[in-house]
Amino acid sequence: MRGKFRIREEYVYKMPVHFGGEPFVPVRTVYGDMTTICLKFETDQEALLKIIPEDFELLQPMVNVQFANCREVDWMSGGEYRLIQLSSPVRYVGNSEGLEGEYPLVIWENKACPIIGGREEDGMPKVFADIAVERHSGDHWFTCASYECNTFLNLDLERKEELGTEDVARLNESSRINFFGWRYIPNLGKGGTSLSHATLYPQEAIARQVWIGEGCIKWYPLTLEQNLVQFRIISTLADLPVIRYLPAKMMKGSSRLNVGDSRLLP
Amino acid sequence: MRGKFRIREEYVYKMPVHFGGEPFVPVRTVYGDMTTICLKFETDQEALLKIIPEDFELLQPMVNVQFANCREVDWMSGGEYRLIQLSSPVRYVGNSEGLEGEYPLVIWENKACPIIGGREEDGMPKVFADIAVERHSGDHWFTCASYECNTFLNLDLERKEELGTEDVARLNESSRINFFGWRYIPNLGKGGTSLSHATLYPQEAIARQVWIGEGCIKWYPLTLEQNLVQFRIISTLADLPVIRYLPAKMMKGSSRLNVGDSRLLP
Amino acid sequence: MRGKFRIREEYVYKMPVHFGGEPFVPVRTVYGDMTTICLKFETDQEALLKIIPEDFELLQPMVNVQFANCREVDWMSGGEYRLIQLSSPVRYVGNSEGLEGEYPLVIWENKACPIIGGREEDGMPKVFADIAVERHSGDHWFTCASYECNTFLNLDLERKEELGTEDVARLNESSRINFFGWRYIPNLGKGGTSLSHATLYPQEAIARQVWIGEGCIKWYPLTLEQNLVQFRIISTLADLPVIRYLPAKMMKGSSRLNVGDSRLLP
Amino acid sequence: MRGKFRIREEYVYKMPVHFGGEPFVPVRTVYGDMTTICLKFETDQEALLKIIPEDFELLQPMVNVQFANCREVDWMSGGEYRLIQLSSPVRYVGNSEGLEGEYPLVIWENKACPIIGGREEDGMPKVFADIAVERHSGDHWFTCASYECNTFLNLDLERKEELGTEDVARLNESSRINFFGWRYIPNLGKGGTSLSHATLYPQEAIARQVWIGEGCIKWYPLTLEQNLVQFRIISTLADLPVIRYLPAKMMKGSSRLNVGDSRLLP
Repeated sequence: MRGKFRIREEYVYKMPVHFGGEPFVPVRTVYGDMTTICLKFETDQEALLKIIPEDFELLQPMVNVQFANCREVDWMSGGEYRLIQLSSPVRYVGNSEGLEGEYPLVIWENKACPIIGGREEDGMPKVFADIAVERHSGDHWFTCASYECNTFLNLDLERKEELGTEDVARLNESSRINFFGWRYIPNLGKGGTSLSHATLYPQEAIARQVWIGEGCIKWYPLTLEQNLVQFRIISTLADLPVIRYLPAKMMKGSSRLNVGDSRLLP
Repeated sequence: MRGKFRIREEYVYKMPVHFGGEPFVPVRTVYGDMTTICLKFETDQEALLKIIPEDFELLQPMVNVQFANCREVDWMSGGEYRLIQLSSPVRYVGNSEGLEGEYPLVIWENKACPIIGGREEDGMPKVFADIAVERHSGDHWFTCASYECNTFLNLDLERKEELGTEDVARLNESSRINFFGWRYIPNLGKGGTSLSHATLYPQEAIARQVWIGEGCIKWYPLTLEQNLVQFRIISTLADLPVIRYLPAKMMKGSSRLNVGDSRLLP
Repeated sequence: MRGKFRIREEYVYKMPVHFGGEPFVPVRTVYGDMTTICLKFETDQEALLKIIPEDFELLQPMVNVQFANCREVDWMSGGEYRLIQLSSPVRYVGNSEGLEGEYPLVIWENKACPIIGGREEDGMPKVFADIAVERHSGDHWFTCASYECNTFLNLDLERKEELGTEDVARLNESSRINFFGWRYIPNLGKGGTSLSHATLYPQEAIARQVWIGEGCIKWYPLTLEQNLVQFRIISTLADLPVIRYLPAKMMKGSSRLNVGDSRLLP
Repeated sequence: MRGKFRIREEYVYKMPVHFGGEPFVPVRTVYGDMTTICLKFETDQEALLKIIPEDFELLQPMVNVQFANCREVDWMSGGEYRLIQLSSPVRYVGNSEGLEGEYPLVIWENKACPIIGGREEDGMPKVFADIAVERHSGDHWFTCASYECNTFLNLDLERKEELGTEDVARLNESSRINFFGWRYIPNLGKGGTSLSHATLYPQEAIARQVWIGEGCIKWYPLTLEQNLVQFRIISTLADLPVIRYLPAKMMKGSSRLNVGDSRLLP
């Protein structure tokens, strides 16, 4: 009466494992229709360094805020979800490769499935929030995130002129971005870690249309009891001072997540 | 400009780690208001053994189906979520302790937060679904689960007589249940595992009111494209034959998740 | 080839009518499990009078704010929804009956079905919002309402002592409340009304448990573009000054909507 | 202390009326980004005539099934909602105009706001359902509708070749469609009607891209208790026999709802 399921060493699984795994193949999943709003602000370097692991060097005391309405998501049969991500430009100094990219401080997503995969497979700091569709009145675009009906973050963009074909092409020359993560799985029943390491998760974003603009964010810090599980995340980020905003942009295009190129950073 | 966040060895973290962790304390979290519907059926032993890891012995070829409407959830400030769990009675034979309990084959939950914690901390096989509130017409109770508006599982219960105080008290004598999990984290960018082991997650359920009844389940297997990420889970479970149903019950009470007593099973 | 559906004069229908109606029966629908939080504040009489139709006399310059988590709703097969209602005490002076009761200024509800029926059948001023389950940290209870992820109203209650059996019984002696509405259906393709009249909608609320407490509300007025259809409602109500709060209460019990006793007020 | 709000005769209001109305202007609201899937089947004429009011003549025993993902909705500040509509081609014979168009049998929509307006202002037979985003695997497109997690309708489309520019232009020559409704408001507290009449609601749909294809629908009739308020709608429509399917199509384009041209049909 012994169970007959056994994990095959060379296969890849997701929990629950016992329904079977698959041989490893380097997955590249396409997001065919992306609408993104990208804001950027300079913040206090000391405050920011406190939430960057010491294996990374901060390249600039900047925070990139990205809202994305992800549609035509391949692995969802063309379904959709939305996210808001805050990240900073870093260099990984845990080894000698000198890799540069973005370190996401948090990624809110409005569906559980991409959260689970992103956390367990790539160490992406994904957590749940309800995230509104981008809406607009004329060229004023806006969206926001809430938790159990409590808004904690508003994004606003005044969209200005659209970039010409050449400018978009130039932008697409640097379409590849290294995202870094920190994958962490705790011990059970005592302190300490079961798994804790930096990760690399390369992505590509191809723009079809780009507008420049001016944007800003507004935090509504929640009380501890309103959001026990994200209180520290929201209050720490809301406390990052905005020294100045840099030019914002809105983009329509597509993305490719090179999940198969993800790797542990030793 | 080096990041200043460092993981403290004896602390416990959740992703994203860089907002800080906490000293380990054995958490016991209370679910103050639980409404559960429990069905049970005998199935084909061979079919069931295929989805039980070989470190477990199947005690009976039975599947317990539990719907729970969890309210007054402590760690949600009294918030609520719902779940549907299928599990089988097993003995862990990976060591000499001879622990007996339930091995969950899958747990659908309708909120991302409990899914994340249950998977990463306890190896619980939690995945997302929309799950309806239990409703009823007289003593016929029903609920169901769907994914992107596609129903895949219906539960029905004909509720019969309520148990007397003594019967409820007797039931509560065996309120403690060992749940087992299999925590698995894959390698990155290649096959194989980063973490793979059995877990023990003790829980307690105290009934205030219990009714017996007769119940059944009905699967609506989805097509692969309707649910790429759960197709194998749903179709495998839907294929488990129902040889006979055993008596069902409905309960109102409370639960205690002894997260702090969770441990790795070597 | 002429259609064969004909409205029977003595029947009652809902849109779409062509699936058939029913003989009139005086419906009394039960809400078996109600949790309500009731706040009350004195406001500026002049400001309040502006949003009370002239067929009503304002009895006191008071606003009752009621959150209700409605469960075991008969006509939903025991399903649930939530609402937040603001109302003021009035006397109907459009005829000589001298009826007294509550005039709801607005009722936000988180499901479309009760909104449709309440508007078309009883002239209740129901509109949609997402409304959070009541949550709490100790005796501090809170909930809120949002529209497309934008919070516009928070409710807070410090719950104090529970009333004794006699006090609850006394409260239940005046369980019957006259709610008034204003049913209005516009002309099509030009100004003016197709239907416009006051309504009476009697309800009963039976308390099982009552706690007194202190409460307050907080508005987050939305911009016009954030909520084009409710902007005027929210901004007008948010502008009502709070002169003082009166004692609040929380109740658990049941309700009976005497839909069959509803009537036009000539 | 008398209320000071008075309805101005020439204004237009929505419930709640007391927040004020507006002078009538002929509203034309634009839906800037529409994705629609249109199926069509021949059914039994007698069965269909039973659910067509006798003021209409059925032109063909056909049912048009339309799914629409409505985006860039003007009156939602560019927000979105989805609908599934079943309609039949009719001539209005209640007067001598001889107007031809489509009579919607039902329109499920996944947001309360458009439901309320469509019913009260135009007599459109709108009711609530959760409606999935259109998804696809290659050229197989699918979507569905559910109520409290119970799927009741699936739509499938095999998309074939795209139409050329000229064919699309020809299609757009007949972009204007007369939709008919039946606006009905019941009496209160007794049988009979307060308002009951046919309506005309002209709309325009401009296609940018059109594909032809083959489609089908599948009903999952719910039990009475699963959906008390829509049981008769769903079971009646599910009983309409499908004699044969006609060519289907998918379209991307925009729509204009000429609300201001709506009128009562005497």
